[in-house]
Amino acid sequence: MKKIKIAVIGCGTIATNAHIPAYEKNPLAEIKYFCDIIPERTEAKVKEFGGIAVTDYKDILNDPEIEAVSVCTPNDVHAQIATDFLNAGKNVLCEKPAARTYDEALVMQKAQHETGKILNIGVVNRFNSSVNRIKKIIDNGELGEIYHVYGSFRSHRAIPGLGGPFTTKSIAGGGVLIDWGVHFLDLIMYCCGDPEPKTVSGQYYSKLGKNIKDYTFLDMWAGPPIYDGTYDVEDFVTAMIRTQGPSITLNGAWAQNIGADEMFIDFLGSKAGIRLKYGGDFKIFGTKDGALTETTARYQNDNHFDNEIDSFLKCIIDGEKSPAHIDTVIITAKIMQAIYDSSERGNEISFEK
Amino acid sequence: MKKIKIAVIGCGTIATNAHIPAYEKNPLAEIKYFCDIIPERTEAKVKEFGGIAVTDYKDILNDPEIEAVSVCTPNDVHAQIATDFLNAGKNVLCEKPAARTYDEALVMQKAQHETGKILNIGVVNRFNSSVNRIKKIIDNGELGEIYHVYGSFRSHRAIPGLGGPFTTKSIAGGGVLIDWGVHFLDLIMYCCGDPEPKTVSGQYYSKLGKNIKDYTFLDMWAGPPIYDGTYDVEDFVTAMIRTQGPSITLNGAWAQNIGADEMFIDFLGSKAGIRLKYGGDFKIFGTKDGALTETTARYQNDNHFDNEIDSFLKCIIDGEKSPAHIDTVIITAKIMQAIYDSSERGNEISFEK
Amino acid sequence: MKKIKIAVIGCGTIATNAHIPAYEKNPLAEIKYFCDIIPERTEAKVKEFGGIAVTDYKDILNDPEIEAVSVCTPNDVHAQIATDFLNAGKNVLCEKPAARTYDEALVMQKAQHETGKILNIGVVNRFNSSVNRIKKIIDNGELGEIYHVYGSFRSHRAIPGLGGPFTTKSIAGGGVLIDWGVHFLDLIMYCCGDPEPKTVSGQYYSKLGKNIKDYTFLDMWAGPPIYDGTYDVEDFVTAMIRTQGPSITLNGAWAQNIGADEMFIDFLGSKAGIRLKYGGDFKIFGTKDGALTETTARYQNDNHFDNEIDSFLKCIIDGEKSPAHIDTVIITAKIMQAIYDSSERGNEISFEK
Amino acid sequence: MKKIKIAVIGCGTIATNAHIPAYEKNPLAEIKYFCDIIPERTEAKVKEFGGIAVTDYKDILNDPEIEAVSVCTPNDVHAQIATDFLNAGKNVLCEKPAARTYDEALVMQKAQHETGKILNIGVVNRFNSSVNRIKKIIDNGELGEIYHVYGSFRSHRAIPGLGGPFTTKSIAGGGVLIDWGVHFLDLIMYCCGDPEPKTVSGQYYSKLGKNIKDYTFLDMWAGPPIYDGTYDVEDFVTAMIRTQGPSITLNGAWAQNIGADEMFIDFLGSKAGIRLKYGGDFKIFGTKDGALTETTARYQNDNHFDNEIDSFLKCIIDGEKSPAHIDTVIITAKIMQAIYDSSERGNEISFEK
Repeated sequence: MKKIKIAVIGCGTIATNAHIPAYEKNPLAEIKYFCDIIPERTEAKVKEFGGIAVTDYKDILNDPEIEAVSVCTPNDVHAQIATDFLNAGKNVLCEKPAARTYDEALVMQKAQHETGKILNIGVVNRFNSSVNRIKKIIDNGELGEIYHVYGSFRSHRAIPGLGGPFTTKSIAGGGVLIDWGVHFLDLIMYCCGDPEPKTVSGQYYSKLGKNIKDYTFLDMWAGPPIYDGTYDVEDFVTAMIRTQGPSITLNGAWAQNIGADEMFIDFLGSKAGIRLKYGGDFKIFGTKDGALTETTARYQNDNHFDNEIDSFLKCIIDGEKSPAHIDTVIITAKIMQAIYDSSERGNEISFEK
Repeated sequence: MKKIKIAVIGCGTIATNAHIPAYEKNPLAEIKYFCDIIPERTEAKVKEFGGIAVTDYKDILNDPEIEAVSVCTPNDVHAQIATDFLNAGKNVLCEKPAARTYDEALVMQKAQHETGKILNIGVVNRFNSSVNRIKKIIDNGELGEIYHVYGSFRSHRAIPGLGGPFTTKSIAGGGVLIDWGVHFLDLIMYCCGDPEPKTVSGQYYSKLGKNIKDYTFLDMWAGPPIYDGTYDVEDFVTAMIRTQGPSITLNGAWAQNIGADEMFIDFLGSKAGIRLKYGGDFKIFGTKDGALTETTARYQNDNHFDNEIDSFLKCIIDGEKSPAHIDTVIITAKIMQAIYDSSERGNEISFEK
Repeated sequence: MKKIKIAVIGCGTIATNAHIPAYEKNPLAEIKYFCDIIPERTEAKVKEFGGIAVTDYKDILNDPEIEAVSVCTPNDVHAQIATDFLNAGKNVLCEKPAARTYDEALVMQKAQHETGKILNIGVVNRFNSSVNRIKKIIDNGELGEIYHVYGSFRSHRAIPGLGGPFTTKSIAGGGVLIDWGVHFLDLIMYCCGDPEPKTVSGQYYSKLGKNIKDYTFLDMWAGPPIYDGTYDVEDFVTAMIRTQGPSITLNGAWAQNIGADEMFIDFLGSKAGIRLKYGGDFKIFGTKDGALTETTARYQNDNHFDNEIDSFLKCIIDGEKSPAHIDTVIITAKIMQAIYDSSERGNEISFEK
Repeated sequence: MKKIKIAVIGCGTIATNAHIPAYEKNPLAEIKYFCDIIPERTEAKVKEFGGIAVTDYKDILNDPEIEAVSVCTPNDVHAQIATDFLNAGKNVLCEKPAARTYDEALVMQKAQHETGKILNIGVVNRFNSSVNRIKKIIDNGELGEIYHVYGSFRSHRAIPGLGGPFTTKSIAGGGVLIDWGVHFLDLIMYCCGDPEPKTVSGQYYSKLGKNIKDYTFLDMWAGPPIYDGTYDVEDFVTAMIRTQGPSITLNGAWAQNIGADEMFIDFLGSKAGIRLKYGGDFKIFGTKDGALTETTARYQNDNHFDNEIDSFLKCIIDGEKSPAHIDTVIITAKIMQAIYDSSERGNEISFEK
């Protein structure tokens, strides 16, 4: 079988750790181009994997051999690059979040609808085996009615790349909500059947990172800090969302003066409930014959990035709609935008007439 | 010195465990009347402590010897009894919540203003030594700006007296919010300087207790269950409150299918933070010389009910305004009402013009 | 049916909280005598329950109506009182530990053998429903071979009645080992089939209680401290025991400068394992289809003291040998003695030829 | 300054992750030889760092330029290689454990004494900043007398390279004790001033790894399993050690059917205590003005392997005796041997006359 030719746009951390190794080990694909505005990055990839190094993605747009593209750039160019490739007739897997704002995400969705090419977003939890076990349990009715979900993505000290692209609003679009919250919210939406939101209220704060020199930390992902860089995004967010399904509350912190890393999601059901340790295993709490029961099963987890890439490739081959399709992910973009807007206005946003 | 003569109205659990022993050991007071509609209760008290047993509180209203009254009845008669005693010229300590509804609480406040007598509410955490240590730390500025507070009053199985007065809305006014949430909210308000609310959004559910026979539990406070009783109150509540100070979020469960008893309050400050284990000790999270620090000091706690009663008696003697005065507690009543109303409407309540 | 007439010898905490209420609610028994050297104690009991108050147990020895006796005195008189009653033809339930020393316990066992009357010891965990569930799981082979058991009875601050009988060696026989360790060791022995010990090595320390005034604590069972009292028992003990079954290690602290209350027993089996939270529920750790599983079931626990008393009464009626018989409990007494002896010698004690 | 020329013998995981990067970043050293019996390993190193690849360490023995050697081979050739290099006049840093047995370690010590060259063992915790903070606190007397230390190195599933060199006794010398226990024991000895042992009792088991195909795990360090390999080492060990200082108890598991990863050391002092989370931060538990206090400070930890290598190089330059000198580490080797011997005999080993 002929392999699908891939271009990877952006060769930073997520491309290096997730997309590129997944394509390399997948028999259906072959990376033809490594593209990044930093030539050292692409050269290292070509040295390791072969292929062609380019600095401007526009040079790839018209290569008829390219069928599919992974967009792994900072958030600010997601919309432009994804749209350009869709319009050039390519299938696109774009890293999460879809874009910096809901409006940008709508532009991307529109391009997908007009071109009919694939636009999947990197909501990788939809390809996580623990998450899919939970979804199945919920779909089977084992939890009864899910009436509330609480997502806690709170870390003591975890601001990434303080002062750099992650903490610069014009590049990232936001802080902990758009970086971590998108995963939690998407996971919740997926497990609960992607219910439409009715009202959204949020409040965000930028407190611990703003004086970059005063930020005490033990280690830093995507660091070290850039002491004369920019920090204008939120390090704490709280939100309350009513949907056509359960209500959802969120508390999230990239950094907070509470020394607990509470990264979990609670699905409260009328018959039973689940606490998922984010990125890990989960416990089911139920009742049986007058006893309160608590059950955990831990498995060797497969790599959800590999599954995500594999699903993207199979969408290209057989045309099926992925759970990561822009049409489902757009709802999360809408909710996140409403959280930001609500915080700025100091009032709830309502989607009901 | 002449002792203040007291009448205790309602001789159930809270009177027996808190008010009566506190008066008995306080040298400033002497209980003259024990009043309850169940004669067995008052007779047992008279046998143990002396005094006079009565079944109708109206018989006490006009006794000129009585200076002060503890109202320890179910919530549905708080407003009527407290108002009657205020109008009769007595000082009143009324158990929390002030009343079933905000309107009832306003009636009580009005009577207090008109009569000038004392009306304190049993917001006992304001007399708890750990809570007062936290308040002092916050007032000293040691936490910097408190920007958000999260209150978690979630228990796996803790519905009290299922089927009885606690779970009957016409008597109690509500479930976990009015029973536990009132304490958490009041404690937060107290430590943060009783800030005025701006918006309130809430959602409550009655899921686990409603089929009384199907409710699995290990032990029950104020039990056993009344299997043909009433359960029409909430067992879960979530809320988001914006104030002139910090934003506040709450998640509360008398019962939930998550096997964790997470009873704590997080004060998120810009310089440091505190996690208070409700009813216990607290941890301070800060930074020092590049290190992240975590400090706990556990003390022999004094009895906050004793302090509350003592404060009430001293208010009578020296006329000072207590932190438990109806004028501060009324704000919590207003917020709780808004949580219930918001849930029913499915929309946020705004107090801003 | 005629009720079994009971004498309760010693009317302190354990009699008040456990033995007396259990007899009172059991239809097979009736307490005729309450005996204690402190008359206030017996008078209070007679006032509440009826019966006869006596101060000297010898006055009861020859009452032909009395069939059974609960010995709830301090440890120093267990052997004398139990032996006297056995010799007088009475059946005896003696609180744990059997006695202060192994030699004293042997005297008691000898009296039992000679008289043929019942001598049960208050190893109440043998009547605990969680413990019996574990025993059944082990007996069924579900854990495979139990090769090691670790018992942790470590508390931050829990010395009882500092300065009083609990901490006076001539009365209690020892400290945390004889007070708590006896329960942990007996529970382990029971679940593992009461295996004979082969070697015992132990070390104990008396460090935190010995300067009574310097002992910092938050609350004290059987307190308050007697500041001019005696503290000559151990507050920490460690031991390693080889048996014909599993090896056993113990770490125990009434008080330690580690702020963790780790009260649990780990049963390490070749197929699966159990962690029992002492006095609570337990988790089973196993494997299934490539997954690591963890399962808890929490039940409404019945009162193990009620079960213990009920079993004692049924032994009297039908003559069956109880799991609490002195013949099994004597092994624990032997091991505890060896722990103390080993510590004093600084060497292991061996029971092998 | 002229750089010290280094030979790295054995280029597996520990050389790759620890020794080689530490030498590479240290300005005092330069690696001249990479030696391993697997040529692919040395070639990869030479490609990355320069230097010379050799397969037989004897080819390096007589190179006069070489001053120092890191021995990073499996345990079975530690003694031979270290001794050969010492006798050739080289300074040696040998990975832990010193050797498979105490006798082998004594041979190494003898060679060190005879040649006067340096022989340090890779007891890297002696160069860890948290551990050194603890040692300083203890040396200052802040904990009072340390009377007992408990080391818990228990993991749910962590057998490394099941079936390979780690689990083959003739190569590794043992299992969890020699692989992890050596670190815990050495850390304890270091912090307590390397007290001489008086008695040692131990018991080990090989239960969970022995049926290699039945071993359920989630991930495996140094894996994957070799299904037809050897597993003849212990996966569980318990020990009790009396020393001239504190008594020490250990529980260790590479694998156990208890789903808790309890990797910590408790230092029990008469004034205060410390719980060190192995490889992480620590809590100090003390008392102050009637309160029980708990304090943690988390720092950015420096890399202890870098410190270890740096200390080794400085020993060469200035001739000082390192805390990692064979003369201190030999005590741990003696204790570990006694634990194994004691388990096989079923009796305590005594070092007292």
